[in-house]
Amino acid sequence: MAKITHVSPLAPAGFPDLPVIAGAEFASVAAGIKYQDRKDVTLVRLAPGTTIAGAFTKSSTRSAPVLDCQEKIGGDSTEGAAIIVNAGNANAFTGRNGADATHAVTSGVANCLGVPVGRVFSSSTGVIGEPLPHGRITAKLEELKNNLSETAIQDAAEGIRTTDTFPKGSCQSVLIEGKTVNISGIAKGSGMIAPDMATMLVYIFTDAKVEQTLLQSILSELTDLTFNNITVDSDTSTSDTLLLAATGSSGVDITSPAGAFRDALFEVMLDLAHQVVRDGEGATKFLEVEVSGAESVVDARTHALSIANSPLVKTAIAGEDPNWGRVVMAIGKSGAKADRDLLAIWFGDILVAEQGWVSPSYSENDGAEYMHNQDLKIRVDLGLGSHSATVWTCDLTHGYISINADYRS
Amino acid sequence: MAKITHVSPLAPAGFPDLPVIAGAEFASVAAGIKYQDRKDVTLVRLAPGTTIAGAFTKSSTRSAPVLDCQEKIGGDSTEGAAIIVNAGNANAFTGRNGADATHAVTSGVANCLGVPVGRVFSSSTGVIGEPLPHGRITAKLEELKNNLSETAIQDAAEGIRTTDTFPKGSCQSVLIEGKTVNISGIAKGSGMIAPDMATMLVYIFTDAKVEQTLLQSILSELTDLTFNNITVDSDTSTSDTLLLAATGSSGVDITSPAGAFRDALFEVMLDLAHQVVRDGEGATKFLEVEVSGAESVVDARTHALSIANSPLVKTAIAGEDPNWGRVVMAIGKSGAKADRDLLAIWFGDILVAEQGWVSPSYSENDGAEYMHNQDLKIRVDLGLGSHSATVWTCDLTHGYISINADYRS
Repeated sequence: MAKITHVSPLAPAGFPDLPVIAGAEFASVAAGIKYQDRKDVTLVRLAPGTTIAGAFTKSSTRSAPVLDCQEKIGGDSTEGAAIIVNAGNANAFTGRNGADATHAVTSGVANCLGVPVGRVFSSSTGVIGEPLPHGRITAKLEELKNNLSETAIQDAAEGIRTTDTFPKGSCQSVLIEGKTVNISGIAKGSGMIAPDMATMLVYIFTDAKVEQTLLQSILSELTDLTFNNITVDSDTSTSDTLLLAATGSSGVDITSPAGAFRDALFEVMLDLAHQVVRDGEGATKFLEVEVSGAESVVDARTHALSIANSPLVKTAIAGEDPNWGRVVMAIGKSGAKADRDLLAIWFGDILVAEQGWVSPSYSENDGAEYMHNQDLKIRVDLGLGSHSATVWTCDLTHGYISINADYRS
Repeated sequence: MAKITHVSPLAPAGFPDLPVIAGAEFASVAAGIKYQDRKDVTLVRLAPGTTIAGAFTKSSTRSAPVLDCQEKIGGDSTEGAAIIVNAGNANAFTGRNGADATHAVTSGVANCLGVPVGRVFSSSTGVIGEPLPHGRITAKLEELKNNLSETAIQDAAEGIRTTDTFPKGSCQSVLIEGKTVNISGIAKGSGMIAPDMATMLVYIFTDAKVEQTLLQSILSELTDLTFNNITVDSDTSTSDTLLLAATGSSGVDITSPAGAFRDALFEVMLDLAHQVVRDGEGATKFLEVEVSGAESVVDARTHALSIANSPLVKTAIAGEDPNWGRVVMAIGKSGAKADRDLLAIWFGDILVAEQGWVSPSYSENDGAEYMHNQDLKIRVDLGLGSHSATVWTCDLTHGYISINADYRS
C-alpha cells in the first residue's frame, strides 16, 4: 500500500469549525478493520423525523452497501435513523457474502440504537474483493453508542478517511425567516487509496426541516452541478455515496427548491467537491474547465469532461505548458457537437485561440507565465448556442503513477 | 520537445522485407519542415487504375488534409494517383490557411506528376496551430519525382515518422487462383510526439485488383477490428489517416468481401496496429483485453475499451499488480450492460474471479507471477450473451508523464 508521506499541496489551511446540527450525533472508534491504531468505524445517530436524501455511484458493479442504501432512501422518517461507515474494506465484489455482511452491520446498529433497520444506512470503503469482517464493527457498537456527541463531527471526518491526505469539512449558516439554519458536511475521497480505486463518501447534515421528496430533488439538482462535475482520473468507484440528512431541529420549514437554503447547500457541496479534487492522487494543480456556447448542457458537459479527463491535457497542466492544441484535440474527440472554425479558447483571461486558429493577440510567453499558477482555468466557447457547463479536475503527474503503479500487491 | 533516447522495449526485432507492389513508387527527401537533416516529406506515385479506400479520424476538429482526403475518396480511378506526406507540421487548427496550404501541396503534386488534383491525397503530422510551410514541400517535388522507386517503401516508413521510436512495416503474400497477391503496409504513430498528440498514419499497398466500393467495404470492416480497437491514452488525433491503394498489377481480381485477400489484409492491419501500440508513449507492457459473453458487440467493445483506457488498470499493469478489482471497477463505469454477480475474469489462463467474487482456485502468487510477462492478456466473460470484442493497449508509466509533461513549450 502506498504510504502517505505528505499533505496535498492544494489542501486548505485547516479543518473548518463546523456548527453543531442539533439532532445529529457522531462517534468514531478504532475497530481494526484493516488499519491498526486509527479510528476506522464511524456512527451517526439522527433524531426521529430526520429526512434523508441520497446520491450514489452509477457503476453497474456497485457494492452491497450502496445497493442497500438505494433501497432504503425515501422510507418513513418518523422514527430515528443512523449512518454507519467503515474504512479499510469496501465490501465490494464480495459475492453473496456482501449483502449478508451489510445486513449484519445495519441490523446490529438498528438493535443497538432502537431504530428500524430500514433506516440504517451503511458505507464501506477500502480494499475490494475481501470479506468485510463485520463482527469487528458490531463488537464496537455499544462503545460507539456511549460516545455519541453532537460536537464530534470532526472525528467523523477523520474516521471515514482511507488514505486521504487531509480531512474534508465545509459549512454554511443562513438566516431564514429570522432563524439560523446550519449546514455541516464532511467528505472523503480521491486521496491515495491503495490497492483499489478512490471512493468518494459525503455526509451532509442540516437542521432545516425539509420534506424527503423536496430534499431529494434539491440534492439531485445540486449533485449534477458539483460532485458529478469533478474528475480525478475518469475512473468511477463502486462505492460512491452521498447522504444528506435534515433533522428539522431549527424549526425552519423549507418548502421551495430555490432560495437561501438551496444556495447555501450548493456552497457546501461545491466546497467539498473541490476539496476532493484538491486531494486528487498526485495533484499539484487545480483546474476549472468551463465550456460555453454549446447547443445543450449535455454537449457542454461532454466537452468539458473530455478536456478534464484527457491525459494529454492533464500532463500539459502538470508540465505548465499552455498547450491549447491538446484542448482542441479533446474537444474534437468528445463526440459532442463542435465547429473547429468557431472555437475560442482562453487560459485564464488570456485569449489563446479564435476562429479556428491561434489568436493574433496571443503571446506564448503570457500563456507560459499563466501556467505557473496553482489554480488554473481553461475556458472554451463553442460559438454554437447558449448553454454552458463547468467541471473541475487536477493535473496528471508522476505522483499519480507512483501512487498507483509503484507497489506490488 | 521530448528527445527520443531509446527504442521502445516492445519493438519488433527489425523492419520486415516488404515485397514490391508493382505500380507503387516511393521517394522521401529532407525538406526542413521542422526537423533538420532528416527525411520529412514522402511522395508515393500510383499507376493509372489504382483504386483507393480510406479511413479517417472521427474528430470534429480534424485537420485540413483529412477533410481534403475525405472529399476525394471514391473518385474516378482511371488516371494515376499520388500520396504526399509531411512530418513536422500537422496543418491542423490553422484556420482558413489550412485548406489553402493543402491545396497548394496537392495541386503542386498534380502538376508535377501529371495526375488530376482530385487524385492527390495528402497527410500532415507534427505540431498543430502553426502554418504549414508548403513552399518547402513544393520546392522538393521535382527531386522527389526523380527519386521515385518501387523498392523505396522502407524509406517512406522512415520519412513519415515524427518521434516514433521505430519504423513500422508489415506484409503478406497469398496465392489466389495460382497467382501471388502481395500486400505491403507502413505506419507511424503513438511514439513520443511532442508538443502535440500522437497521430496515426497508415498506408497500405496491394497489387490485387479490387473495385473501389468493395475495397472500401473491406477496409471499413477491418479497421473496426484493428485500428479502431487500439488505444494508448484514449486521446484521438485530429489527423489520423489510413489509405489503402490497390494497383491491380498482379492481374488477380478480388470480387468477394471474404476470402484469402481479406484475411491477408487483416493480418497486415492487425500487425501494424499492434506495432503502433508497441510504440505507445512510455510503454513497457503490451496488453490484450478480450470481453466475451456480451449481449452485443457494442457492449463488449465498450467494456473492453473502458478497461483498456482506465488509468487505474493501466498503472496496475505498469506496477505488475494483478489488481482485478480495478477491472471490476472499469466494467462498472463503462455504461454498458453487466451483472456484477455473473462476471468472470482471467489474467492469462488464470481464473481470478467468478460469480461476483474472487475465485476459490485463485492464488495471488500465481497472479503476481503472471504479471511479470511483457505481453499480457485480461479476459472478461460477462455471462450475458454470445458477443465479444478484443482491444489492445499498453501500460501507463512514468515514461508517459515524462514525455508529455516534463518539458515546456
